[in-house]
Amino acid sequence: METISENACFGGVQGVYRHKSDSCRCDMTFGLFLPEEARDENVPLLWYLSGLTCTHENAMTKAAAQGWAAEHGIALVFPDTSPRGEGIANDDAFDMGQGAGFYVNATEDPWKPHFRMWDYVAEELPALLARNFAIDAERQSITGHSMGGHGALTLAMNLPERYRSVSAFSPICNPASSDWGRKQLSGYLGADESKWARHDASLLMREKGFDGPMLIDTGTNDQFIELLRPETLAEAIAARRQQAAFRMQPGYDHSYFFVSSFMEDHIAFHAEALWT
Amino acid sequence: METISENACFGGVQGVYRHKSDSCRCDMTFGLFLPEEARDENVPLLWYLSGLTCTHENAMTKAAAQGWAAEHGIALVFPDTSPRGEGIANDDAFDMGQGAGFYVNATEDPWKPHFRMWDYVAEELPALLARNFAIDAERQSITGHSMGGHGALTLAMNLPERYRSVSAFSPICNPASSDWGRKQLSGYLGADESKWARHDASLLMREKGFDGPMLIDTGTNDQFIELLRPETLAEAIAARRQQAAFRMQPGYDHSYFFVSSFMEDHIAFHAEALWT
Repeated sequence: METISENACFGGVQGVYRHKSDSCRCDMTFGLFLPEEARDENVPLLWYLSGLTCTHENAMTKAAAQGWAAEHGIALVFPDTSPRGEGIANDDAFDMGQGAGFYVNATEDPWKPHFRMWDYVAEELPALLARNFAIDAERQSITGHSMGGHGALTLAMNLPERYRSVSAFSPICNPASSDWGRKQLSGYLGADESKWARHDASLLMREKGFDGPMLIDTGTNDQFIELLRPETLAEAIAARRQQAAFRMQPGYDHSYFFVSSFMEDHIAFHAEALWT
Repeated sequence: METISENACFGGVQGVYRHKSDSCRCDMTFGLFLPEEARDENVPLLWYLSGLTCTHENAMTKAAAQGWAAEHGIALVFPDTSPRGEGIANDDAFDMGQGAGFYVNATEDPWKPHFRMWDYVAEELPALLARNFAIDAERQSITGHSMGGHGALTLAMNLPERYRSVSAFSPICNPASSDWGRKQLSGYLGADESKWARHDASLLMREKGFDGPMLIDTGTNDQFIELLRPETLAEAIAARRQQAAFRMQPGYDHSYFFVSSFMEDHIAFHAEALWT
């Protein structure tokens, strides 16, 4: 593992690291914020999964998360959103291929050799973090934005006991019924829609839900809201009697200005689950 | 108007008053909490509509609302849930007739002579309060529990500009499709279901929504949740892109122990709308 940079940040350290990924068979880069407390003890970890076109860097610089994480003594990890580089499949569209891994293990060509973001985020990266940093693997929670909100919700529901809490900012809620989803799930997983179900938050909510608290924020003026389909997840949450706060935030759009506006709430929400 | 009682309460006064109601053609009793500020100036007013079987008294004594209202300088009014007394129609069931007015104007016998709770809460009582107490009629918000949550939501959506904010505790969300609703709406309004639509929060949300903030809490262990149908309203809120916080609170039931647990949140929510 190679250290790309380390900067003092809110009393702790914002680092960027690169490593050879076995899952993705390429070099992968991630950001990690460690609060001051990590000098002396293992600290809880909050995952932040990013959206389409993002690298590890976007949320790290624009989501205004480190200050609140420092206040609560929580580490933050910012993974990349796909494998990258020459010799790795790509697509001209912004919403497919590099920058658009959708947090699945691709089974179809040309994606399957490298696009294994599920394994990367669910298995490889957590193990690497626990080995190399002052992280308490027993205390993890997860959040994300847009495609990353989809990732956070689907990982949380598929991996019971892994995360103590889950939240999302303007998540893709029902990819199996959206143009943000059908193209990608069919491309990565093939035409058999039964294989998509475990990567659809609304279908997972109907089937199993999440054993812990859930917080979801979406802007009423989100320019992509027809693609996000929050109404499908809202209905499923209430029908399951899932512990949750589902909020429609007036006037906000899909940008990091929205994400940063509610970051304080989300980190306080996760802190309550991580520190009790 | 007759004063039944006045008690010092959180620096203000909790009163109970009785008056001859033109709408209901009988004596009606209500509770009114006025905070200390009402000695010197007109204060904002939060309506609290109660649920099945309640009088003006239940929430006044069990919802733990006055302390938070005092902190925010807000008046609270607790209307009764129906006309009452000898010579007024009733039903042996707890969910019909006296104690179960459902916040409608009955058009059917035997209810129509007295059961005009819509007019009472929407017109008569607000005018009486503005005439007799230090209330600022330009600053009103509304909340309620169960049948009263139904009342709060349907009044708020049908009377644009009247209320600055609306909230509800475990509201009946879709009475036109529930056993808590079909019997009462057909009894009070007749068999023509088109006349029920303006008394169904989910149908109103689909049709028009609310021009302001909305907060809804329901317990995941609510023993009446199948009758409340929160999933219908959750879907409608998200589909309309309605500014709202829709929360499913883990482990809570339908009781005042639930209502009082979240009263602080609800009054702070309304205070933000009433004081800006």
